[in-house]
Amino acid sequence: MMYPNNIKKEYHKKENTYYGNRGMDLEALLNDTNNYYVEKDKALIYKKPTPIGVIDVAYENHKKMIKKAYFKTHSTLDYNGIYKGKYVDFEAKETKNRTAFPLGNIHPHQINHIRSVIRHGGITFLIILMNNIVYLLKGSDFLEFIDHNTRKSIPYDYIKDKGYIIKYGYNPALDYLSTVDELYINKKEEIYGN
Amino acid sequence: MMYPNNIKKEYHKKENTYYGNRGMDLEALLNDTNNYYVEKDKALIYKKPTPIGVIDVAYENHKKMIKKAYFKTHSTLDYNGIYKGKYVDFEAKETKNRTAFPLGNIHPHQINHIRSVIRHGGITFLIILMNNIVYLLKGSDFLEFIDHNTRKSIPYDYIKDKGYIIKYGYNPALDYLSTVDELYINKKEEIYGN
Repeated sequence: MMYPNNIKKEYHKKENTYYGNRGMDLEALLNDTNNYYVEKDKALIYKKPTPIGVIDVAYENHKKMIKKAYFKTHSTLDYNGIYKGKYVDFEAKETKNRTAFPLGNIHPHQINHIRSVIRHGGITFLIILMNNIVYLLKGSDFLEFIDHNTRKSIPYDYIKDKGYIIKYGYNPALDYLSTVDELYINKKEEIYGN
Repeated sequence: MMYPNNIKKEYHKKENTYYGNRGMDLEALLNDTNNYYVEKDKALIYKKPTPIGVIDVAYENHKKMIKKAYFKTHSTLDYNGIYKGKYVDFEAKETKNRTAFPLGNIHPHQINHIRSVIRHGGITFLIILMNNIVYLLKGSDFLEFIDHNTRKSIPYDYIKDKGYIIKYGYNPALDYLSTVDELYINKKEEIYGN
């Protein structure tokens, strides 16, 4: 390898983030993508901060610091915002399970929220990283499975069949809004069916 | 007073929250209101959790706990969601200043965000508690002031003139969506002008 030290480092850092041994960092890729969309004024979509329960605070140099807190779970989904005038709301999940997506990943409150968003005319879906492929699974297809199965996981075949592959690239890293265009924006009659 | 102890307590608690010496708790009233809207399936609007920067975590009984963290500021606004198929995004602020609303309350990132939401066709506004009155100030009226003044605060007269009073009641406590109906939903031609 002939890279000068600093370039080599950068190269390996990129590689690690995207395809390294630890796999893709889905959240980082989506944050990069959302920043790109905001910069290009294409959409305003942000990840919500993780809610915490604060147990103890203290002041340090007149700054309020958290001394003890625990992580809570969202009752809504992680990402929301506006795209082409439409409300968009989604969750991103990854699983190392190669044959099925465990439904324990999605809380009952979140399932209700997906139902509500569809009812209110918003666009909602899951982004699932599984077997090193990123899928967009429409909220309606997710509910279709939940409502007709008692299984505690979605078989990979269902995700391959119903999901839409989001390819990764550079800028944006995961251009999920082109898939949203195809599935929702350019098919106006289906928007309320999600 | 003839209340049994527990009722008396409850009564005083309510009174404190709503009109007590410490004044109205705007955030609590808005959370109650948003819960009411969700229960009645009228809208899906939530407060975003406060973002934090985690410095240190530790495990206690296999549970990940935050041991040190600091509060960060939102680059977006505090509340967002969907109402009648429209994207809604707003900030709630209170001031004890009786003559002017200090603009230090709203960060430059948030001002940009208000501009962006209008450009993308969303509904955006401020809810301001001042002189014990709750006002809804349209994003466009807020920007109108910012863009034509170099002052570091908005005079109360401007808020009285341009703002719309949200009366408080029970269930919902602050029915700001009726004001949204009046200002945005029932005036379709104005929606992109916010």
